[in-house]
Amino acid sequence: MLPTAALADFNAALSAERVFTDAATLALYSHDETPRSCLPDAVLFPASHEHVVALMRVALARHIPLVARGAGSGNVGGALPAPGSAVVSFECMDAILEFNPADRYMVVQPGVVTADIELAARAHGLFYPPDPGSSPYCQIGGNLAMNAAGPRAVKYGVTRDYVLGLRAVAGSGAELRTGCRTTKGVTGYDLTRLLVGSEGTLGLITEATLKLLPAPEARATLRVCYATNLDACKAVARVMNQAVVPCALEFMDQRSLGAIQAAGAAADLPAGTEALLMVEADGAATDLPRQISALKAALHGDGVLELAEAGNAADVAQLWQARRSLSHAVKRIAPLKINEDVVVPVSRLAELVGHIDQLGERLALPIVSFGHAGNGNLHVNIMVNPADPQQMRNARQALQQLFAKVLELGGTLSGEHGIGSEKRDYVSMEIDAGSLEMMRLIKAQFDPQGLLNPGKLLPQ
Amino acid sequence: MLPTAALADFNAALSAERVFTDAATLALYSHDETPRSCLPDAVLFPASHEHVVALMRVALARHIPLVARGAGSGNVGGALPAPGSAVVSFECMDAILEFNPADRYMVVQPGVVTADIELAARAHGLFYPPDPGSSPYCQIGGNLAMNAAGPRAVKYGVTRDYVLGLRAVAGSGAELRTGCRTTKGVTGYDLTRLLVGSEGTLGLITEATLKLLPAPEARATLRVCYATNLDACKAVARVMNQAVVPCALEFMDQRSLGAIQAAGAAADLPAGTEALLMVEADGAATDLPRQISALKAALHGDGVLELAEAGNAADVAQLWQARRSLSHAVKRIAPLKINEDVVVPVSRLAELVGHIDQLGERLALPIVSFGHAGNGNLHVNIMVNPADPQQMRNARQALQQLFAKVLELGGTLSGEHGIGSEKRDYVSMEIDAGSLEMMRLIKAQFDPQGLLNPGKLLPQ
Repeated sequence: MLPTAALADFNAALSAERVFTDAATLALYSHDETPRSCLPDAVLFPASHEHVVALMRVALARHIPLVARGAGSGNVGGALPAPGSAVVSFECMDAILEFNPADRYMVVQPGVVTADIELAARAHGLFYPPDPGSSPYCQIGGNLAMNAAGPRAVKYGVTRDYVLGLRAVAGSGAELRTGCRTTKGVTGYDLTRLLVGSEGTLGLITEATLKLLPAPEARATLRVCYATNLDACKAVARVMNQAVVPCALEFMDQRSLGAIQAAGAAADLPAGTEALLMVEADGAATDLPRQISALKAALHGDGVLELAEAGNAADVAQLWQARRSLSHAVKRIAPLKINEDVVVPVSRLAELVGHIDQLGERLALPIVSFGHAGNGNLHVNIMVNPADPQQMRNARQALQQLFAKVLELGGTLSGEHGIGSEKRDYVSMEIDAGSLEMMRLIKAQFDPQGLLNPGKLLPQ
Repeated sequence: MLPTAALADFNAALSAERVFTDAATLALYSHDETPRSCLPDAVLFPASHEHVVALMRVALARHIPLVARGAGSGNVGGALPAPGSAVVSFECMDAILEFNPADRYMVVQPGVVTADIELAARAHGLFYPPDPGSSPYCQIGGNLAMNAAGPRAVKYGVTRDYVLGLRAVAGSGAELRTGCRTTKGVTGYDLTRLLVGSEGTLGLITEATLKLLPAPEARATLRVCYATNLDACKAVARVMNQAVVPCALEFMDQRSLGAIQAAGAAADLPAGTEALLMVEADGAATDLPRQISALKAALHGDGVLELAEAGNAADVAQLWQARRSLSHAVKRIAPLKINEDVVVPVSRLAELVGHIDQLGERLALPIVSFGHAGNGNLHVNIMVNPADPQQMRNARQALQQLFAKVLELGGTLSGEHGIGSEKRDYVSMEIDAGSLEMMRLIKAQFDPQGLLNPGKLLPQ
């Protein structure tokens, strides 16, 4: 329970109707997409930068941990409350503060839904490239915290690449303005990209200036069915080794296909399909045929069972709907989904997928893999029954072996989901002691009391 | 003079033939492209990461400031030695350590010449987009330190966008490995982009993993002459407000044209030309006509005197040669060039150029402006005679007023040259006290003794 004095201070800082401590609200904000949960002591709903400054001051004076939260759609416990913490929900800070189409930027508050940014941009012929699967409901603040990405990252890059500047309140209480509004700028250290991806552990972001691009005029989608995972992975490497960069290159293995078929999609796959690639190109309408023809040439090869261009918008929408639903659809396979998000260089993807197949067989675990293959980014879902201790032991062993293989192949533990509470025990497998120590020093300086999102990102 | 004990230690750490203290060498390494100079006490030529670790240890033990140096082609005194310092020249660390065309990355040492990276990449159908004017002789280490850019930034972004990971030695002596080799990765804080653009004040970079892109197949170049600066700036805003993003959009004012004509180029400009735009598109050969036609439509408007597509490679090369020579060519106008590198949102470029014209008239100073107009990035060269005290006073006033205007227009002090010693007095006009303090804390933690490039980037 929040100490009375702290409650009184938060009430004074934000007004009482922005401070919730009732059981129903605390329960609602006690978890993200991971199975774990922890009740916070309060949920705060700031409405302005000034509110955030004020609540940070209270937290410092009363030593209350703060856990920033967007839509709670994260996969690694990034928004999981710490014991005794107050959740800072940004959902009331949901304004687009400025939209300048001529200079291609937009200034937003953290609670704006990602898809709404895209929508506003499209109305002026522009677009905001990062497109996490959760974009219809996730918030840009969460995207900034985790450096979110999505299918379009293969051509357009990730959240980090579209942030020109930030306004934030550090854990020390310091107010920060970072970056600029122009597409170039080198004045001072790059605090912008230090905050992006810092998972709410360094500061609370209150405004972001986002870079927009001209929206591509047209798009075309291919669905390619392969006899084996290996065939599909080899095709991915071929696609990423020729000049036309697709704007999506998504891989789904056999269990993923089973899950989307159980959900009513992709009923027409040719017999023997064990892996599928969804490949998209975008650009000028007159240039698409050239792109598609180059992509088809690269996609052709061993094990192709079908290579089809989606004929109409409804087909494409259905395919994407199925792909987006995967993250939830696989949950039918077993009660618990241990959801990893590893990356390897694309030329090593086949080796990784082969290793995962072996792991699943050896440890008798159903593993479902799909993801953004063009970046070598695979979502590896180990499906387990948490009531079965042997299975849980095997799952832990599988994780350890998966990460070791990923690093051996020159990869990284997380491409876009982040570390949060779920992967912090593995971070020191990837990051050396000197760099980790430097990260700890940075944390200590932004957040000297250690109040911001404790227990996340850095290993214990 | 280097203390005897320090010299002995550097000799032991690197071997005596890698430590120079003779007058000729010290003089050679006493300056960059700015007129200021300062003799270092020694010049060190490490040949490996281990050498850099060792020399950092000596510097810490003997309290010797270290100034990292690439080719010395910087414009802001970034490589200017500090009194009593040892220059660390990376020119012996000039190896491409790994080139993986299939995964589109290259691991390089800091002394590799930027153009050589491009050359190696092109041989495999790839390219490295950042292209500072000095790329034929500058080194990637300097590019990383300053977050260098160049004409292609308007379409492809800056150095920061092409660094996947780094190996470095912090001023504390800590060895760091940052980032990854894949195009996505969110494990830990983004130390990579904290080091990029930090001007050698946080760490000494010993390796960089660079991202490469498929090389565009073809290119086309337009030369467009306008009656006034205002006409040209309005055209820039129109170009950047339609869907085809050019891969270069360069502006030259009348004095710039005079300088390149004096150097023998652009002899055929139509009468009355006061401003010129060089506009390039790249991509698939079959797609270029569409791009060029869209760009021409946007470039047409008030004051167009000529809009011509360069007919052959020699014409294009000559035009670029002239543009690249500008930085040196303008030096004929007056003994001292005070070289600024401001950025404003493209829609405000006309206002900025108008303001610069007024400044020049009011303060009786010849000002030459040219630059990467598509990013709103203008190189503003105030030409003065340092022997004339009134002119120097006026120049300082002009700078102050220029920066105030740039910030009023929503811009930033430097787009690509950096801050170095030359602009640090102006940084606090742009960056607020809270953010500056956070930068100072970061500096103190990476470099607790303050040995790395003292007197640069952050204001006193």
